Parts: sequence; C-alpha cells; structure tokens
Amino acid sequence: MDENKHIGQSVGIVTPQVAKFTEPFTFKCGAVIADYELVYETYGMLNSDHSNAVLVCHALNASHHVAGTYADDPGNVGWWDNLIGPGKPVDTNRFFVIGVNNLGGCHGSTGPKSINSGTGKPWGSQFPVVTVEDWVKSQTRLADRLGIPQFAAVMGGSLGAMQSLQWTISYPERLRHALVIACAPNLSAQNIAFNEIARQAIITDPDFHGGDYYERGVTPKRGLRVARMVGHVTYLSDDEMANKFGRQLKHGKLNYSFDTDFQIESYLRYQADKFAEYFDANTYLRITKVLDYFDPAFEHGGDLTRALAPAKAAFLVVSFTTDWRFSPERSREIVSALLDNRGDVTYAEIDAPHGHDAFLLDDERYHRLVAAYFDRIGVEVGA
Amino acid sequence: MDENKHIGQSVGIVTPQVAKFTEPFTFKCGAVIADYELVYETYGMLNSDHSNAVLVCHALNASHHVAGTYADDPGNVGWWDNLIGPGKPVDTNRFFVIGVNNLGGCHGSTGPKSINSGTGKPWGSQFPVVTVEDWVKSQTRLADRLGIPQFAAVMGGSLGAMQSLQWTISYPERLRHALVIACAPNLSAQNIAFNEIARQAIITDPDFHGGDYYERGVTPKRGLRVARMVGHVTYLSDDEMANKFGRQLKHGKLNYSFDTDFQIESYLRYQADKFAEYFDANTYLRITKVLDYFDPAFEHGGDLTRALAPAKAAFLVVSFTTDWRFSPERSREIVSALLDNRGDVTYAEIDAPHGHDAFLLDDERYHRLVAAYFDRIGVEVGA
Repeated sequence: MDENKHIGQSVGIVTPQVAKFTEPFTFKCGAVIADYELVYETYGMLNSDHSNAVLVCHALNASHHVAGTYADDPGNVGWWDNLIGPGKPVDTNRFFVIGVNNLGGCHGSTGPKSINSGTGKPWGSQFPVVTVEDWVKSQTRLADRLGIPQFAAVMGGSLGAMQSLQWTISYPERLRHALVIACAPNLSAQNIAFNEIARQAIITDPDFHGGDYYERGVTPKRGLRVARMVGHVTYLSDDEMANKFGRQLKHGKLNYSFDTDFQIESYLRYQADKFAEYFDANTYLRITKVLDYFDPAFEHGGDLTRALAPAKAAFLVVSFTTDWRFSPERSREIVSALLDNRGDVTYAEIDAPHGHDAFLLDDERYHRLVAAYFDRIGVEVGA
Repeated sequence: MDENKHIGQSVGIVTPQVAKFTEPFTFKCGAVIADYELVYETYGMLNSDHSNAVLVCHALNASHHVAGTYADDPGNVGWWDNLIGPGKPVDTNRFFVIGVNNLGGCHGSTGPKSINSGTGKPWGSQFPVVTVEDWVKSQTRLADRLGIPQFAAVMGGSLGAMQSLQWTISYPERLRHALVIACAPNLSAQNIAFNEIARQAIITDPDFHGGDYYERGVTPKRGLRVARMVGHVTYLSDDEMANKFGRQLKHGKLNYSFDTDFQIESYLRYQADKFAEYFDANTYLRITKVLDYFDPAFEHGGDLTRALAPAKAAFLVVSFTTDWRFSPERSREIVSALLDNRGDVTYAEIDAPHGHDAFLLDDERYHRLVAAYFDRIGVEVGA
C-alpha cells in the first residue's frame, strides 16, 4: 500500500437494483418509448431529510457499478472504487451515493439490445439516438423514485461530467454541487473525427446488419475492436504510452510480418478483444453520438455563458495537464463562463501524466482535492 | 495568385519511366526476389559531370509523380509540384530531380499487386515486409542505372525524410546534402498504435483474405477506408481541423441518426472513399510497417549519435510547430545527434498551423528556406 493514498475502505459487496418506469419517455429527437428500466447501485445510507445523495454519472464504457464488488464476481470492482467508499474522498459514511447505467446502455438498463415491449424483439436499429439531456431527464425519474428532491452533488468525469453540467442547466434546483472532471463544453472537430472513425468501423462491419444483428446470432466484433482501439489511444497521453510501452518488442525482435512486433500492439489487441466480448456495438454508436451532440452553447448562438446562466450549483472543475482529448483549455472555457455568471467555482488543473484516463486513477493530489471539496458539503449524517 | 509565393513555373507534361532490374534483390528480412521494376519520373537535365541530381523520396501514400502533370490526365498534378520546377525552390533549371515509387508500392513499381514472375500470380501475402533500408538500397540501383555516382541532395518529408536520413547512414559517399523534413528518428508508441489500428482495420476486413484478395475480385475497401481516416486525422492538427471544420453541420441540423451530422464526418468519408478506390491494402500494411520499423539507433543500443556517425552529408532539418505526429522535439533529437557528430546542420522550426501535412503545403517561410538552401548547393548548370 502506498502510504500517501487516501485511507478508506471498500463499500464491500453490492447488489444492483432495477427501477422500472412505465410512463412513456420522450427523447430529445422526438422518439417515444412506452416503458424502460434503469439498473443502479447505491452505497451508504440516505439521511432523514434526503439531503446527502450523490449521483455518479458514467462515461463511455462504464456502468452503474461504481464501487464495491459482487458476491459472485469478486474481481469485478466498481470503476470509481478508488474514490468512493467509507473514509474515501466521497465518503459513504456521510453520503448516499448512486450509480446508474444510462438509457441506451448495455449493462442492464434499457438499450438497443433490450426487448422492445411493443414488438417482443430487440430494439436494435430502432432504439433512439440519445443525448445527454435525455440521460439527465431519465435520471430525474430515478431520483424521484428514490425520494431525492435535491442531490448534494452530481459528479462525473469526461462524458459523466457533461451530465453533471447538464444537470445544472436543466434542473438547477435539484443539485447543490456539480463536479465536472476532465470535461469539455463540446467536442472539437478532432474528437468528432475519432468518434466517426469508430462508428465507421462498426457500421461497415458486415456483421452489423444495419444494427439488427441480435437475432442473426452475430455481433460486429471486428468493428468494435477497431473502435475500442481508437478510443484507447485517445484516452492515453503520448507520454504515458511512451513510458508504459515505448518501442518495447513483444518477442525481443522484429517479425517482418503482421503479427505482434511491439508491446503496444499486443496491449491494444488484448484490450480490443476484451471489449468486443462484453460491449454492445449499438450502444457504442449511440454513446459516441451523445458525445458529439453535447453542446449546451449551441442553442445560445455559441454563448456558453448564456447556456450556463440557469446554473445555481457550486462547481468543482478539474482538468489534467496531459489530457489531449479534453484539454485543460476546454475546462477553462467552462470555468470562465461560470465566473461570467458570478458562479461559485473551484478550479484545479492537476499535473498528471496519464492523459484523459487520469480522472479514473488514484492520483493523490486529485483525490485530496475531491476529499476536501466533499468535506465542505454540509450534510446530516445517518438516517 | 498570392504575390508572396515563390515565383516559378510548372515542369509541364511529364512521362513516367520504368527501370527493370534483373539481379536478385535481398530484403533486410532475408527474403529474395528475382527481379523487380521501379517506376520513376525525372525533371530537368542531368549535367555533364552528373553532379546535379536530386532524389525525392515519397511518404505514405504518394508516388514517383512529384511534379508536373500528365498529357492524358492534366488534373493529376505531382504531390510536391509547389516546390519543384523551373524557378521554384528546387529549381529544375539547375537540378535534375528524380521521383521514384518505392518497392512494395502500388503506383507502378513492383509490389504486392504485381505479378510474381516465379509463379505468374500476384505477390499478395508473399510480398516481403519492406524497410527504409530496403528502399534506399533499391534506390541506389536506380541511381547506378541513371549514371549518378553521388546525389547533390536526397530529400523527403515524413517517411520520405526517413529515407533521406537512411541514405546518409547507408551510403554516406553518395549524397552531399540531406533534406530531412517533418521527420522523427523513430515512431513513438502512439504513432505505432495508430498504425496498428489501421492494420487491424484492413486485416480483419473479410475481403482481405490474408492478403490474397486480387484473384478473388474483391478488395478490403472497408478496412482501407477506416485506415485512411485514422491516418488523415493524425496528419492534421487539432487547430487546423477546428479552423477548417469546427462543429459545422452538414445539413444545418442534427439528424439523430448515423448519417453525416458534421462537416468533418463528410470530409473524412469522402477522403476515405477516394483512397479506398486507388490505394492497395497490402501496400498500406507494408508502408505502416516501414514506419514502425524505422529506428536507426536500435542497432546502436538506442544511441542516435552513434547511428548517425557515418553521415557525411550537410543537413537541412525542418519541423513544423503544430505537427503532433512528428513533433519538433523529435526533429531536435536528430539535430542534436548530428551536432554531437560535429555535422553541418541547418535547423528550422516553421510556425505553421497545418500539422504534419505542412510539409506538403505552400508555406512561404518554409519554401524560402528550401530555396535558400538549394541556392547554396553549388552545381554546374546544363549538360
């Protein structure tokens, strides 16, 4: 154990729960679904006045499994387990933390691979193209169900942070704090380009069948593999890849073939194979569109300050120096817009070598900052 | 016409020529081919003592068609036409310039899609994995054929510059100047990763058939499309893409589908479609390996200074500030190693917004620099 690390324990064994919603849900695109389910997990206890709830929003390929582990799958540790638990920066002795799989996902919530109750068949290509706004709206229904009128905080990194930001715009009364980590107010052309490469890899895979592959017994794994590789390279910094892999050879020599020569190739192939086994291609397509479409300033003529004017939450905005996907410069645009609105903003730029992935990692300064921020959020302890 | 541009004319109509070599060629990997052809073009006149020849080496997807145009295809202008011609920075009134398609290419020189004279069938998967060293060696045979004992200069950008550099190591007596533009002494892990994504897209395309697709009447176009998109994004800078495309919508609104929403998507798809029509997938695979394998320091324990110790040429090294594929930092490694060897080096870092592609573009400072450098190369004019 690194003694500098924040002391804390795991939340231990957790069990996902399912919330079924039977009111129709209208998406931003206009599509309506009659019913849907959201799978979620909770850690800690909701206090008597329901004021200590923290919503954790997930990014691209993560899920509701934010902390702890499963009784029947002890190796499956939540994706933000290093940050959330008793005595951890987001202290579950004080906060009631909720992780939710988003609509359109493939980890249990209703998505393209789910059965459409209207047809009895998987949604496939007919599942709507979702947006951050849709996700946030669907999350309010879960909050209603759990009896949470206002979150102590909504938090996330990357695409998760876009959801935090959208909460402050769409439902300013329903959260007191927003943690916006490794975020951008919209994607750059380069970001969109990488997403489009991933989509083209999937869509042109002959096993994609226009998105209706479930009943054909195939999945577009080739495309998903390439899509994942593109994603993976953009999450890591050039320096981090150099430090981790450099030009190390897999077998000590060049093969003069298209087998694996370099360790980085081996690593990418392994990650891609793993991903293509468990992730759904239709979900991946939609999540990249969610990212591309997010642009709160768009409806305000590109004016982010006006877009963020409704926000009432206090903000913690965090960026990482080597994040070339969502660079500190992009976070500063958010900070600047919030300050223009005389908002309550804490901003930190963490000097970390890990690129965009840094928000998931156990960086001491970053975790101390989050811990200090949550320390200042006043809540009653216990139910 | 921009009046700031270097005054000069086109070399006009040009005609490719073919050099057939019937001595066996042994590749670095050990493979031997019995015979091969190189297609090339020349511009200007070789002088009486054969001292004014300039070899131009091409990069990833270019060819021997460096300058001028074709009588039957006037729109097909050489890829470095802005730099080479009468009165241009590389002045064909003074220099005899040669462009050559490399071995393994798909523009006329012997490569995977050529017929293997031993079998009467296309080489396909059996064509060797080539290296920069192989290319340079094959180019010496063309120089012998043309009666050029020593080049006034060998020049190239990107992968072309790697060939210039290799010339100074492998054949130090055979060139007086090396122009090393937008180069790196080897690829970073991130560079290799992007190449591996491109390769995986091609190799996993069901129409690839292990590289032996020619006789099946198919080509792995899906994979080539994705490969080209990956390449394209890495050649442009983030800023350049932001300036050129930003978040401009193709149809003025979001589609909520997987059709084209943003201009950048439309551009990438167009470029990818075009590329997949004319480029050979087996060649693309090999050229990415040529890049990955290039690492002159490797055989010297990573010591680039020792690797470059044989070089006798004078150098012009040029980098571009926004090139994130081969950053100025990487060019400075080359300069530093050359200076350690007390070499004759001119180095310039050009402040240009265009990323890696800048070496192909008509940037005034860059072109003036090349012109000034060539002015100092003393040659006799005329034959």
